[in-house]
Formats: sequence, structure tokens, C-alpha cells
Amino acid sequence: MNGNALDRLVVLFSKLPGIGKKSAGRIAYHILDSNPSFAVTLANELSGLHKAIRKCSICGGFTEADPCFVCCDPKRDSSIICVVESAQDIRIIEDGKEFSGVYHVLGGLIAPLDGVSPANLSIDKLINRLSDTKNKQVKELILALNPTVEGDTTALYLQKTLKEYSVIISRLASGMPVGGNIEYIDKLTLSRSFRGRIRI
Amino acid sequence: MNGNALDRLVVLFSKLPGIGKKSAGRIAYHILDSNPSFAVTLANELSGLHKAIRKCSICGGFTEADPCFVCCDPKRDSSIICVVESAQDIRIIEDGKEFSGVYHVLGGLIAPLDGVSPANLSIDKLINRLSDTKNKQVKELILALNPTVEGDTTALYLQKTLKEYSVIISRLASGMPVGGNIEYIDKLTLSRSFRGRIRI
Repeated sequence: MNGNALDRLVVLFSKLPGIGKKSAGRIAYHILDSNPSFAVTLANELSGLHKAIRKCSICGGFTEADPCFVCCDPKRDSSIICVVESAQDIRIIEDGKEFSGVYHVLGGLIAPLDGVSPANLSIDKLINRLSDTKNKQVKELILALNPTVEGDTTALYLQKTLKEYSVIISRLASGMPVGGNIEYIDKLTLSRSFRGRIRI
Repeated sequence: MNGNALDRLVVLFSKLPGIGKKSAGRIAYHILDSNPSFAVTLANELSGLHKAIRKCSICGGFTEADPCFVCCDPKRDSSIICVVESAQDIRIIEDGKEFSGVYHVLGGLIAPLDGVSPANLSIDKLINRLSDTKNKQVKELILALNPTVEGDTTALYLQKTLKEYSVIISRLASGMPVGGNIEYIDKLTLSRSFRGRIRI
């Protein structure tokens, strides 16, 4: 059965993140067992995806119309910019309905070992947004970067680079997740929870 | 961002088995970030899938050519038929390289609560294969059905229905998985391991 249409589909699916060989097989057989219209709909969406979706020229998020719906929305507070690693993070933060400012996608995190330097990130564009006098003055940059070595490095770099701009730079709180158990928390997280403790 | 191409793709992916809303989002963004040729290749494979793959008229497995490569292979022992629930099971058993006979896909298991009766399964076709004098006499039927209530019911039904045919009916051994730990095995599995114990 090597090299037939089903095997080729399994190989393609197993290239997707979080899908191993077994899951890929399960998915391919599921599609084969389903109504052919599902496969055709999925095929059409996939083939049209890159034509339909582009990057927003302001924030760098994925969008059908440029600028994106967040950057265009007059109700959003453009004086607060949430800096994220990838466009997908915007989706996750929007789902949380906590943030009403605008976004800026860096397109990665500084990771010298992976060959990602500050020049590879959309930092110049961020500086332009801070210094652009046509827009409303940016008051705060919220760095919504992962609490990892790469996230910490990038946050530190941004803090140093943007020192000269009169903008508050904050970072998302790092500590114990809601519903977590002190017993099972790693030392680094516990230490951050202590350092970031909040007076009640 | 509701209702755009990306959201529609996420909804479609989340309909696949084992993929939740978060994984679907991750996959869709991954495809968007990848080379557009990947999306196009996947789209082409999906749209051509149902045209390329059909069911083997003998065993019921998925195949590009009819009969399938197993049923056509003169090296396979057609006197031993391995009865499986779904076409996907053939792939898993073939990967194990343990079995050199042929297959028969039932297309499900007897499950009265889900409205699946023996009439919904490919049992008549199995009986035809047993009684067809043109072919080599079938000596053994290996029931490779899940050790679940539905699998047990179906095995019992087949055993009763095929009583009149001079064919050995066997079932895959059920017991502790290799590398398992007696401490963590459930009672039913342990009981089956005892009943199916093998003299060494």
C-alpha cells in the first residue's frame, strides 16, 4: 500500500504540529470514511488560504483585510500595545477578552542558538509605531512573551532598546497557574511567584 | 476575525478525530506560516482522495486497485482470514508484519445501543468467502476485534453463526500489554490474563 493516495495523505498530515504517524493515519481514514464533501471543502479552504489571508501592515497579525480588524477598530485603545511572539498569540489573547488595546507581532523571540537575532524580529516597526507622531501617543507596551529563556532575553532587549522612549514597559505576570498546586510547581515558577507577589 | 478563511479552516480541522479547538488553531497557523506549496499539496491530495481510493471488492479494505494488494498477492495464505472491525486495522496489523494471511473488514461491531445490528456488518460476504468452493478452502478465521463489550458480542455472534462451517475460529489474545505492570492492570484484564495463560 506504499505510495498510494492514502499513504501520501498520512505523510502530509504527520508533518503538522502535534500529529504523529498514528494520529495522521486515524485522521486520513476518518476523512476517507466521511462524506467526500468534507474532504473537498477542506481542500478548497486550504488551497485558498494563502490568497485570502495576509499580514496586517500595522501589527503583523494575520488578516483578510489590511489593516486588520483590531488596528481599524476605533474602540480599541491604540495607546496600549501588546507585543506578542506570533500572530497566533493574538487569537489566544482575543479569546480571553481581557485586553482592549492593539497588538504588535514580533515574529519570533531572540534565540542566538537558533540563529534568531533582534534584526530578524519586527522591532524597527515597533520603534516606528512608538515614534510616529501622527498616531495617538503610545503609553504602555505590554510584553506578552513566554516566560522562557528566549522570552526573558527578548523582554530584556526590548527594555534596553526602548529606554529612550517615554513608554511604560510591562510584562505579563508569571507564577502559579489558577487551579495549580504548590506541591507540583517547579522551583523557578515558585520563585517567580514570590518575587511577583501582590499585596492584598 | 470571525468567519474569515482562517477561522473556517480551524473549524474544519477541529472536526477531525483527536484534534480540539486549540490544536486546530495551532495547525491552521502552522500551515499559514509554512510555504504555500504545502497547503496546495495537501489540498490536492484531499480533493483527489475519494476518487483514488475505493473499497476492495473481496476484503473491504481501502485500495487504489481492486482487488487490493493483499487479496492479489499469491504469497499470502488465503486459507487464513483475519476479521477486523475497520479498514484502518489492516494497516496496523500489516505494520506489525506478523500476519501473512488475508483480511475481511466487518465495517463495525455489533452495538445495539448505537443501532448497529449484524445486518449492518459485512457478515454475508464473509459467509460467501467461507462457502465459495472456487477459492482455496478457508481453514481459520482470526477475529482481531477489540476486547470490548462490542468486540466480545460480535465474536460470540460470529462463532454461533459460523458454527456449521468447518473452520477454526480464534481470537487475538487479551491480557497484559508488554512492558505493563501487574500493579496497574485492571481486574478484567488480569482475569483474562489468567484465563488465557500459556504453558511454558
